[in-house]
Amino acid sequence: MRTALVIGTGLIGTSAALALAGRGVRVHLSDHDPDRARTAAARGAGTDDEPEGRCDLVVVAVPPAHVAATLADAIRAGRGRAYLDVASVKGGPRRELEALGCDLSGYLGTHPMAGRERSGPMAATADLFEGRPWVLTPTRETDTEVLNIALELIAHCRAVPVVMDADAHDRAVALVSHTPQLVSSMVAARLAEADETAVRLCGQGIRDVTRIAASDPRMWLEILAANPGPVADVLAAVAADLEGTVRALRAMDTAGDAADEEAAAGLEDVLRRGNTGRARVPGKHGSAPAAYETVTVLIGDQPGELARIFADAGRAGVNIEDVRIEHATGRQSGLIQLMVEPKAADALAETLRERGWSLRQ
Amino acid sequence: MRTALVIGTGLIGTSAALALAGRGVRVHLSDHDPDRARTAAARGAGTDDEPEGRCDLVVVAVPPAHVAATLADAIRAGRGRAYLDVASVKGGPRRELEALGCDLSGYLGTHPMAGRERSGPMAATADLFEGRPWVLTPTRETDTEVLNIALELIAHCRAVPVVMDADAHDRAVALVSHTPQLVSSMVAARLAEADETAVRLCGQGIRDVTRIAASDPRMWLEILAANPGPVADVLAAVAADLEGTVRALRAMDTAGDAADEEAAAGLEDVLRRGNTGRARVPGKHGSAPAAYETVTVLIGDQPGELARIFADAGRAGVNIEDVRIEHATGRQSGLIQLMVEPKAADALAETLRERGWSLRQ
Repeated sequence: MRTALVIGTGLIGTSAALALAGRGVRVHLSDHDPDRARTAAARGAGTDDEPEGRCDLVVVAVPPAHVAATLADAIRAGRGRAYLDVASVKGGPRRELEALGCDLSGYLGTHPMAGRERSGPMAATADLFEGRPWVLTPTRETDTEVLNIALELIAHCRAVPVVMDADAHDRAVALVSHTPQLVSSMVAARLAEADETAVRLCGQGIRDVTRIAASDPRMWLEILAANPGPVADVLAAVAADLEGTVRALRAMDTAGDAADEEAAAGLEDVLRRGNTGRARVPGKHGSAPAAYETVTVLIGDQPGELARIFADAGRAGVNIEDVRIEHATGRQSGLIQLMVEPKAADALAETLRERGWSLRQ
Repeated sequence: MRTALVIGTGLIGTSAALALAGRGVRVHLSDHDPDRARTAAARGAGTDDEPEGRCDLVVVAVPPAHVAATLADAIRAGRGRAYLDVASVKGGPRRELEALGCDLSGYLGTHPMAGRERSGPMAATADLFEGRPWVLTPTRETDTEVLNIALELIAHCRAVPVVMDADAHDRAVALVSHTPQLVSSMVAARLAEADETAVRLCGQGIRDVTRIAASDPRMWLEILAANPGPVADVLAAVAADLEGTVRALRAMDTAGDAADEEAAAGLEDVLRRGNTGRARVPGKHGSAPAAYETVTVLIGDQPGELARIFADAGRAGVNIEDVRIEHATGRQSGLIQLMVEPKAADALAETLRERGWSLRQ
């Protein structure tokens, strides 16, 4: 691949352009707002000059609602040999293109599973996609050459290609991304009008469950509007569990002292299925979810405390797989949880104790 | 306070006993399983000898279902001047005690908001409650001396006392603890039978939302069975939002191209209320939720990488408020997010760049 045209120079488009430009591909940048294309060019993502003739690759990185029309225009104008989009849903754009009567042999729908809190070309970075899944949704019509150009783009971005059917992709993101977002928002929404004293009792559990409830509503509205059916299906399944749980709790409430065994069995079933599902969530490096051992250490709140603890951990020659700071309420101290391979936990704990740290057993 | 009797030497009871013993209080330990009391004594939490005469404080730290009966026995036997329980629900035990016809002037229901993944006396630690809210639910009948003994216990444990009405407490924990647990389990349950390819697409969002879905079902069943009414009320409110959201998504799905404005407004409303609620979740030290700035750095997976980055961050004299490791799929590298006070972010970024780290802008 020698030339590429990136249409839409937001976070995703500019990040892909930066990765391609860094590998020597001549990248042309285009945006409905010429200032944004100029900004992307100034960041080293390519040129905002019009390409002369066809490009090897055209990447359409515009909001979901504009993907099909932008692709159709590019295909009809014969601007490239291969056409990709990077929208977060895949079934709809394909059906819209079909309805527009486009030749789809040069088109491949893709979705890089990467993002940031910030958006726009200034937030873009060549390594945005590094190590992230990048979904490809080829069909029997898809040209092999087009698939190979997409794989070349993904390799330049150091992402991990994953091939899926377009509708299966949309169901998967409804399950692993769109539903968790909405449910997190709904739990957080219950706090909106809660008493101040109740809110003071929040701990690490609700803090984790509601973290993504801080996301941008306008952006999520666009994403959800492009995938309403699959999201509704997953949410309806959650709603069925929820209704069953409310029924079980009401039965327990009215049963009083007498334990309602059927209700208890229903509650336990939901909790156990939750265990099973959680165990499938991939850990670091996309490997099987790791059973790390946690070493918990009491830390003060002075600058340098974390530096000191990691330096001391380094002395044990132990690789820290994950780290979590637990927040204390109303005090200048906290706990840090260091997650390590089970066989490394004892050595780490011993080294830290020797160095004067106070450990939780 | 000079003497205390702790009935129930699990995680909570033994931790409180360790804190009291560490402050010179003579602690007697009792458990329906004498081995557990002996283990707690061996850990330095007190003695498993029977106390001679009345103790200044009796702490009942048994499972929710046994709290009222254990308290009633202790009160009738006149074992102490003040009686506390530490169960995770407060309305039920009080009503049960009333039904048993007990004198409640010496009783105070309390709930320390602390826990761990592990349980039992071997997991106990004197600093378990440090910086955590410890709820007190006095009534007009509660003796002032009893309240003061409870405050002394909480001070010894270095926890933060919070006074609440018993039923308000139960509604609060339903909101901030029990509901997030069940909803996390329900989202995770959707993954139990998902395709392997879909599960591969999991990112940090669903990882956070489902973290607590790994919790012990038996323990949670006990907690939920003791607080069914308030949990059902909060869940029913979540269910109403959920049903509204499913309806809005179905309307969007059938509306097709034509954007359904009413449905979109409904979805946006849930997302915005989620923003509002999330903004109320307290941050570190129970302070107002902090608006930290995030400095994101690419790290390798070798031992010592984290030590090196925190040492380099320490050179900037910056206090790191929170830290998060983002996992890459299928690769030996990742991103670390360092959260700092906004005014410290530039200095940190500059120091790290000077020391050769690759930063996300």
